Amino acid sequence: MPEKPITRRAFLEFGGAAALTAGAIGLTGCSPQGQEADEARSAATAASENVSWDKEADVVIVGFGGAGGAAAIEAKRAGAEVVVLEELDHPGGSTAACGGSILMADTPLQKKFGLKDSVEAFYDYMRAAGGAAANQEALKVLCDFSPQLYDWCVGCGMDFEGGELYPGPHINSFNKKGYTLFYTGNEQARAFAEITPPVPRGHSSLPNSSGADVFSALQSTADALGVEVLTETAGKRLVTDAEGRVVGVSAEGKDGEIAIRARKAVVLTAGGFADNESMMAEHYPHTNRHGQSLISAGNENGSGILMGQAVGAATRGMGCFQIGKPLSTMSDALPRGVLVDGHGRRIVAEDEYNTFVGRAIMAASTERCFLILDDRTETEGGAAKILGEPVATCNSIDEVAAAVGANPAVMGATIAFYNESASLGEDREFGKDPQFLVPLEQGPYHVHACGSEACVIGTCGGLKIDTDAHVLDRDGNVIPGLYAAGRNSGSIFGWYMGSGASVADVLTFGIIAGRNAAAESGSEETAA
Amino acid sequence: MPEKPITRRAFLEFGGAAALTAGAIGLTGCSPQGQEADEARSAATAASENVSWDKEADVVIVGFGGAGGAAAIEAKRAGAEVVVLEELDHPGGSTAACGGSILMADTPLQKKFGLKDSVEAFYDYMRAAGGAAANQEALKVLCDFSPQLYDWCVGCGMDFEGGELYPGPHINSFNKKGYTLFYTGNEQARAFAEITPPVPRGHSSLPNSSGADVFSALQSTADALGVEVLTETAGKRLVTDAEGRVVGVSAEGKDGEIAIRARKAVVLTAGGFADNESMMAEHYPHTNRHGQSLISAGNENGSGILMGQAVGAATRGMGCFQIGKPLSTMSDALPRGVLVDGHGRRIVAEDEYNTFVGRAIMAASTERCFLILDDRTETEGGAAKILGEPVATCNSIDEVAAAVGANPAVMGATIAFYNESASLGEDREFGKDPQFLVPLEQGPYHVHACGSEACVIGTCGGLKIDTDAHVLDRDGNVIPGLYAAGRNSGSIFGWYMGSGASVADVLTFGIIAGRNAAAESGSEETAA
Repeated sequence: MPEKPITRRAFLEFGGAAALTAGAIGLTGCSPQGQEADEARSAATAASENVSWDKEADVVIVGFGGAGGAAAIEAKRAGAEVVVLEELDHPGGSTAACGGSILMADTPLQKKFGLKDSVEAFYDYMRAAGGAAANQEALKVLCDFSPQLYDWCVGCGMDFEGGELYPGPHINSFNKKGYTLFYTGNEQARAFAEITPPVPRGHSSLPNSSGADVFSALQSTADALGVEVLTETAGKRLVTDAEGRVVGVSAEGKDGEIAIRARKAVVLTAGGFADNESMMAEHYPHTNRHGQSLISAGNENGSGILMGQAVGAATRGMGCFQIGKPLSTMSDALPRGVLVDGHGRRIVAEDEYNTFVGRAIMAASTERCFLILDDRTETEGGAAKILGEPVATCNSIDEVAAAVGANPAVMGATIAFYNESASLGEDREFGKDPQFLVPLEQGPYHVHACGSEACVIGTCGGLKIDTDAHVLDRDGNVIPGLYAAGRNSGSIFGWYMGSGASVADVLTFGIIAGRNAAAESGSEETAA
Repeated sequence: MPEKPITRRAFLEFGGAAALTAGAIGLTGCSPQGQEADEARSAATAASENVSWDKEADVVIVGFGGAGGAAAIEAKRAGAEVVVLEELDHPGGSTAACGGSILMADTPLQKKFGLKDSVEAFYDYMRAAGGAAANQEALKVLCDFSPQLYDWCVGCGMDFEGGELYPGPHINSFNKKGYTLFYTGNEQARAFAEITPPVPRGHSSLPNSSGADVFSALQSTADALGVEVLTETAGKRLVTDAEGRVVGVSAEGKDGEIAIRARKAVVLTAGGFADNESMMAEHYPHTNRHGQSLISAGNENGSGILMGQAVGAATRGMGCFQIGKPLSTMSDALPRGVLVDGHGRRIVAEDEYNTFVGRAIMAASTERCFLILDDRTETEGGAAKILGEPVATCNSIDEVAAAVGANPAVMGATIAFYNESASLGEDREFGKDPQFLVPLEQGPYHVHACGSEACVIGTCGGLKIDTDAHVLDRDGNVIPGLYAAGRNSGSIFGWYMGSGASVADVLTFGIIAGRNAAAESGSEETAA
């Protein structure tokens, strides 16, 4: 028996302990016995003394998306030698694939348009949007850092001030070339406007106001600084030394395995796990099935999270997901529709931000939900392009009820009450903006399938980090030499991952991770 | 670098590998260096060679509730020497604290009352109730085993046949002395009755039809067999040998730490994690806050699950919870009320089983929900006793709307439509049983707070097991020498943990675990 009493702290510390002791194996040259143990050893976190380094740098970054790019730039600027590993043949990750909006407050661009904002108001909104599952301390850091982030982005070559303020309500920055400031979330929804006055905070960069613009600025900045990037090189395992410090990464490269030593630290920025079906099955909490991944990069395989867990990292918010159903964020007209569940009951204000619409669909008492549009909205909203062809086109609400499979009296009451609200100019149920309150009183009505299977999904959970981007073990202790940012870090936003929120987080904590990684005193090359 | 290529399998196998290599430390006598490593070692899974055994048995069971009791009885009957560890000063766990109903199909008691049932129909219902998150294979085993489970329970001294068939709709077995067969779940709800004909399957034992009756039968059977029980002895860490086989348990007993060797296997049956706030914060997926633990034993601390994870066990369904709001299950009258969200919109058929009512409350678009009762239902339903005093008593529906904070037109439409449904004898929205459709047309109306904070909660997630109750690692491989059952095993039911379902699972897989543990060839005492 160990001499020391087993405190609860020590007990809970096991997660980290496993890796620490595993690391010690190589150091002392002892080895497990038996076939299982051999397998185990080949799979275990490598011990530094077992590793012949193929390469080394001060800071090794796993994943070259927005977070990895920001971390690489800041580590390099701080004088560190940096190597970035990217498993695909091209960098960019989710950041390059997303809408490219960056939520920031109290910025020169807002001032240019005469808008009054503050980091405090930003924090009030984000707390309300993120809910109890959000990491309040991290949110505070993100909001407070926001004016500096603006300057940082401009310093990387992003152009915000050459663009216009988008005049409409919250809308995604897709296809809004020339506009660089938007409402991007639920700022204008009744429940949130009551908490803090709506202000547009979504900043997009010219020329195309897209995520590609954001990432190309990061990539060219990293290139100019001389950051080394290894593409088609997938981080697989963290290498630890006898004290359990993370001292490198074992990766699968174009020519097989390579081991890269990190003199100072490793930063995990390899994205979420929406494409990893076993992790999704483990953590996805809803009874309604989920749709496809929101992420087009297609490699949200959770590898960074698994690498961290393998050295005892704790996770946070693994049950939190961004569930999006873009109605208002893809069209100015679609919010004029009525979104009902399979009982024919309306479930949400159709103009809310897509993650709030998506959550309402996931929480509906029926898996099947439907968006009902009149002929004008169908056409003006580009519904067929965004939602696919209608499952039915009906001449009466009774026909709509039949198409939905709802009781016609329930559907009739839903529409009658909604139409009365429209005539009163007030959505008495959910407070939808009156501009979208158009009565459904004239067929044909187009019925679009709008259930959970049609919601895009992104993961919010990941490794538990502190506000310095250190990865923490199950007892809240820092795992030395290891940082995480972006979707490899756990649910800063709780459930809220609205347009602009994710990239703001990705850049802010990527910057913090890069700076802190470069400032590490680092590990000595332990002699055999 | 390891010679072997790192396959995905090996990579994912790390979880188990950590413990395996940790186990090897002691064997070869090497040790980590540095303070962290020392802490780590004291916290790590002990290696058999580091342990001086204070005690030994063939099968060591952690937790003496229903699952532990069933496992102990079967292991002992199979000829194994058994020791059971219970951290509290009394056994029983959640089983002794629960309603005591056991879901079983095709039983002599059902036949006695002329009821036709089959294990196939039982399986159809359980699959529908459990949803996609349920473990289909385990459900099948549970349903098929059900007739044998009946005989097994009778063999332990439970008396079903001396009682009556409860004539009412599904109702919890609390305070229904003398009745031994009940509807206990959502069998009669429209959505489920359409799938398979409703049959009462909840079996309760005389004398009191309570969980205490179930557990006392197990305890006296175990006593008669000579099962050794150590109370106030909390399992803390699993002991593994060089091959990673689980060979014992380190526990905190009355007089400090003791190590108990398990010649054949260890069975984890230490309950769920509803009382472990950090585990709840990690896995609880809802934005609406949760209420108190359903379990009165008060030690749902997740210790068994953490012990398993520490040797690399995978988990299953950690995001699945039983969220109960007992309306119909506590009173024949309360389902006559109308359950609305903060918008004044009805959210569920009020007569559904409590976990379905609870889920609807958790999924509501407002955290605050309310049950509205007329004066007669308030009295006959014993509402104040079950739900607490009303937050308001109102003379009109407008006053109710004001008390709820809803738009009076929305609340008015909800009640008007509901009353019309009552006059038609059909709940057109959710299909509530017409016997509960009583119009709200005469004040005073009593408004009871019925939000998420008032829902009791139980955890459904736990260690991943196969149908032999083996605990599996992240790659689906059996962790040798380790079994789990009850709430230490993960979400057999998905979200459904209705009255009778949990105890049926607890007993079935407790029996399976006990039999298989006793049948293990076991570990040799490895010489130093």
